[in-house]
Amino acid sequence: MSQFIVIEGLEGAGKSTVQGHVVDWLESKGLTVLRTREPGGTPLAEKMRSLVKEVHEEPLTMEAELLLMYAARVQLVKGCIQPALAANTWVVGDRHDWSSLAYQGGGRGIDVALISQIKQAVLGDFTPNLVLYLDIDPAQGLARARIRGELDRIEQEQLSFFERTRAGYLALADNNPDCEIIDASQSEAEVKAAVLACLERRLCTLG
Amino acid sequence: MSQFIVIEGLEGAGKSTVQGHVVDWLESKGLTVLRTREPGGTPLAEKMRSLVKEVHEEPLTMEAELLLMYAARVQLVKGCIQPALAANTWVVGDRHDWSSLAYQGGGRGIDVALISQIKQAVLGDFTPNLVLYLDIDPAQGLARARIRGELDRIEQEQLSFFERTRAGYLALADNNPDCEIIDASQSEAEVKAAVLACLERRLCTLG
Ligand SMILES: Nc1ncnc2c1ncn2[C@@H]1O[C@H](COP(=O)(O)OP(=O)(O)O)[C@@H](O)[C@H]1O
Ligand SMILES: Nc1ncnc2c1ncn2[C@@H]1O[C@H](COP(=O)(O)OP(=O)(O)O)[C@@H](O)[C@H]1O
Ligand SMILES: [Mg+2]
Ligand SMILES: [Mg+2]
Repeated sequence: MSQFIVIEGLEGAGKSTVQGHVVDWLESKGLTVLRTREPGGTPLAEKMRSLVKEVHEEPLTMEAELLLMYAARVQLVKGCIQPALAANTWVVGDRHDWSSLAYQGGGRGIDVALISQIKQAVLGDFTPNLVLYLDIDPAQGLARARIRGELDRIEQEQLSFFERTRAGYLALADNNPDCEIIDASQSEAEVKAAVLACLERRLCTLG
Repeated sequence: MSQFIVIEGLEGAGKSTVQGHVVDWLESKGLTVLRTREPGGTPLAEKMRSLVKEVHEEPLTMEAELLLMYAARVQLVKGCIQPALAANTWVVGDRHDWSSLAYQGGGRGIDVALISQIKQAVLGDFTPNLVLYLDIDPAQGLARARIRGELDRIEQEQLSFFERTRAGYLALADNNPDCEIIDASQSEAEVKAAVLACLERRLCTLG
């Protein structure tokens, strides 16, 4: 049975980098793997992503931001992720539902019960099999992201926003049996080793 | 105290035409009036509207359609409608929340309780003071809309979709003290007279 593995964390935590390692590892086991990113991942969902990421003259309300995130998510889940899983393809996601709970909940302060209600309404009990949460100090993550290029609308938020987002992530990760917390402040090689160790331990019956 | 008056009904029912009459009538009483249309009504909400209205290669899932509608709605309500009402401007809307309940609920078959949950989550108890529901046979409405121009993605649905949507509207309108049902199969002059009679009766203390 294929699984849905999600990488979560702040900007610059190393999600996209780690996603590559996870995909390589699964493929080395002879598995078929689909890479996704959120928000986005389908042509229509990418258009919704643009509305969220671009800086507009008109401020995007936080409620519209939340709904756009879920619109993009449900489009990706129903259109790509669920069909892939049904066809025994493994799916490795760069962000998923926890991003909304951490950013819109923790960061923006929207009631997480309300976010969960919206999630439940459109996605029911669909949830990843495993979340790799890359924990990092926001300043360190943003410094890495800044090297990568220009910061988008969300990346331009204040440090306190990302502190609240990190706290939101940690509340989700803490004591969650379907989550592994990775110390993402380590070097890329150390993070990679920690991730591969998790995969070996969790998925040792594969291949 | 200014009010939020919404015109609802199927394509070609005459909503935009009636909106003009309502705006004219309110302005003739010396009131300041804002016209809105949904989905859309702000630059960002119009971009969300395009995603819903355009025909895409990738089918838009009905859940993503629903969330885009509410993303556009909350953007318009928080960004324009509520500030206008707070500034004592009257607002006359071409479609609002009932469209989602009728089209996504009645038409597409999404549970209306679930739609109400999403609505409640992002808009709370915000609701129009008066809904003018223009009731029309779908075939007659679509014939009018077809004269107007090309049909968009939603307008291209089958007649049975619009029959279910109409039933959804009637369920909302029936016995609702904040709604007036107008027989929109009548001539434009008759519809106008019926609308103005409603306004005179409902808002007789104005001006
Ligand atoms: N552990 C690490 N230490 C230092 N730099 C890293 C590490 N992991 C990734 N990077 C670099 O930091 C930047 C952001 O990494 P990326 O994987 O794009 O993060 P994210 O997808 O979480 O925003 C990239 O330039 C990447 O090469
Ligand atoms: N009562 C009516 N009888 C006949 N045609 C009408 C009537 N009301 C509007 N129309 C015409 O039908 C078309 C659709 O009307 P419109 O107001 O744009 O409807 P809607 O906004 O509900 O789609 C327009 O060409 C309009 O001039
Ligand atoms: Mg990335
Ligand atoms: Mg119209």
